Amino acid sequence: MNEETDKQRRKVLKLTGAIGIGAMLSSPFNVFASEPNRRIPSRGYAAFDESGVLKPWTFERRPVGDNDILIDIKFASICHSDIHQEKGHWGKQQYPQVPGHEIVGIVSAVGKNVSKFKVGDRAGVGCMCGNHYHHHDTDEEQYNADTLFTYGFPDDRSPTGITQGGYSNNIVVEEDFAVHIPQSVSFQEAVPLLCAGITTYSPLMRADIKPGMKVGVAGIGGLGHLAVKIAVSKGAEVYAFTTSPTKVKDILAFGAKEAIVVDDLAKLQPYHGQLDYVISTIPYDFNVAAYAAVVKPYGTFTQVGMPINSEVTMSALYLAFSRVNFNASLIGGMKETQEVVNYCASHNVLPNIEMINANQINQAWENVVDKKARYRYVIDASTF
Amino acid sequence: MNEETDKQRRKVLKLTGAIGIGAMLSSPFNVFASEPNRRIPSRGYAAFDESGVLKPWTFERRPVGDNDILIDIKFASICHSDIHQEKGHWGKQQYPQVPGHEIVGIVSAVGKNVSKFKVGDRAGVGCMCGNHYHHHDTDEEQYNADTLFTYGFPDDRSPTGITQGGYSNNIVVEEDFAVHIPQSVSFQEAVPLLCAGITTYSPLMRADIKPGMKVGVAGIGGLGHLAVKIAVSKGAEVYAFTTSPTKVKDILAFGAKEAIVVDDLAKLQPYHGQLDYVISTIPYDFNVAAYAAVVKPYGTFTQVGMPINSEVTMSALYLAFSRVNFNASLIGGMKETQEVVNYCASHNVLPNIEMINANQINQAWENVVDKKARYRYVIDASTF
Repeated sequence: MNEETDKQRRKVLKLTGAIGIGAMLSSPFNVFASEPNRRIPSRGYAAFDESGVLKPWTFERRPVGDNDILIDIKFASICHSDIHQEKGHWGKQQYPQVPGHEIVGIVSAVGKNVSKFKVGDRAGVGCMCGNHYHHHDTDEEQYNADTLFTYGFPDDRSPTGITQGGYSNNIVVEEDFAVHIPQSVSFQEAVPLLCAGITTYSPLMRADIKPGMKVGVAGIGGLGHLAVKIAVSKGAEVYAFTTSPTKVKDILAFGAKEAIVVDDLAKLQPYHGQLDYVISTIPYDFNVAAYAAVVKPYGTFTQVGMPINSEVTMSALYLAFSRVNFNASLIGGMKETQEVVNYCASHNVLPNIEMINANQINQAWENVVDKKARYRYVIDASTF
Repeated sequence: MNEETDKQRRKVLKLTGAIGIGAMLSSPFNVFASEPNRRIPSRGYAAFDESGVLKPWTFERRPVGDNDILIDIKFASICHSDIHQEKGHWGKQQYPQVPGHEIVGIVSAVGKNVSKFKVGDRAGVGCMCGNHYHHHDTDEEQYNADTLFTYGFPDDRSPTGITQGGYSNNIVVEEDFAVHIPQSVSFQEAVPLLCAGITTYSPLMRADIKPGMKVGVAGIGGLGHLAVKIAVSKGAEVYAFTTSPTKVKDILAFGAKEAIVVDDLAKLQPYHGQLDYVISTIPYDFNVAAYAAVVKPYGTFTQVGMPINSEVTMSALYLAFSRVNFNASLIGGMKETQEVVNYCASHNVLPNIEMINANQINQAWENVVDKKARYRYVIDASTF
């Protein structure tokens, strides 16, 4: 045993005492967490190549470290990002890779330094799972170069060399990268908040949405429908731009003032220069300047959808004419993630979900791409 | 004679008295302005197709209308936009077309409603020359859909059907779209202010540049070198990003704190998140998000260069990481154009120019594309 391994072993020994109850409460797999330096067996659904077809896979996670918690996953939900990343749309991937960054479950073990969680707590994990140096000195961990993202991210500690995501029955994350899920919200309805919720909430809060403000939401899928509900809950007059006529009725039920079916960019014309702020969740390249033109001069248009290669193309000339500021936003920090979960739970701002089992994931992915999701697929993790 | 023509004739008759002195003061051509309803003969250099090769051309301009002034052009300067537009980079063009939207000269005739100019005044014209309805209700005429741009823009009143620009010996424009050129500045040094000056000044003023602010300028050509000088004159600490090592000495002489030769995007790395504001004059598509990353989080990056098809492509992901607002800006309003001319004249913030004759224009265009201009070519209009 070399010195480093021994050091690790000693850390894990200290952990043992703390996880006794967790091991008893949680699924049989988690009992291994109580053994020193023991990797965590896990089973989930992984992509094996750029076809993006998911298949069952068993793998190992790293041992529970001093600052880690082990979560017995109860539900994971499907984000369009999962599809983009596994299909290599954002760059070459290492496979097998388990996607999933909307995760909820029960804490089944905690490391010796953990103070924010105890075994039995309801916990959620989003797009981030740790930091190379176990510290984060701002409230915007998502922009910290040392932050680890939840799946497909290089991580020496992981037996597979990369982080493995939430389409699985358990996960090990640093405690600073988990949030508490209040008792007032069901796990199933909370889970999409971990990415879709925070990704839309964060820029909406930055835009300082106030009652009566005219807020546009472009792209009404998993993210967009939550953006509509959050903006409505803040008192905004919401204009929802969709390409799916079949979503109009739902959108109005979410509280939007108008649902505009943009089957032709000319449909945007009547809204030119009218809105105080627009958030776009459109996950493919689109005519950014045409959409941005619905914002009032010197207002802001925020892109949160990440297209293929993350690239968007726009006419600088049209953008100049609209005088709109274009920016992009990536999820939100951990403090704000806890905030959105608490806000949505206490204000009953919750996603529309469809429950599926693991063997329905591939079909669900096709539906997401075909804009047929209504509006977030939630996977029952007991079926992995 | 139909009613409309007669109405026009009567208007022009009223004009006649006012232009007697102007006709005497100005070049022989302008004497025709004193004849009712008489089109103005003009000679200049025009593009005849997308090759963008300019040749001498004689043509007619519209008669001097009630709200118009006729300017005997003394100098015109060369903007990269001239090249883009005549080569069809921004869309199909009607030819022959006379480019040029940096124009100075002497007023040689005025219409009967004209109150701001009198014959003999020093006047300048930029990118705009009129408004379809002879009114403009904001200080941002450049974003008004009824505004006429100085060349290649459909205009029923023009004998050629489009506006014809300043590479010529005279021009007819509405008085509201001309500015006064103070006596304290030479015509030659004033002329680039009409586009390069206002295009950089306007966003710099909007960015509220204050002493000590760290301001970046990307692309140090005709526009960029003026942006550096204007920002320096406002007390900013200026960082100039260029791809031309041979410009470094000049840039430091303009007062920039640093001149960074970006022969590799890695050269931007040390400036990441450092600058308060950046203006880019780069007239071709480039890695926007990489450049934008030098701005502090939540700061602004303004694009004023207009690439081919006006299109810029950027990584929404990198833009998200930088948290920078991207916008674009188009010249500036007429009030602000007068302001920049006055400001630059009184603060001695003037372009570096090279004088050329008309027969050197084609070579000068090649030099501009090859980044060899130092920094603005000014054409002596007596050589048309």
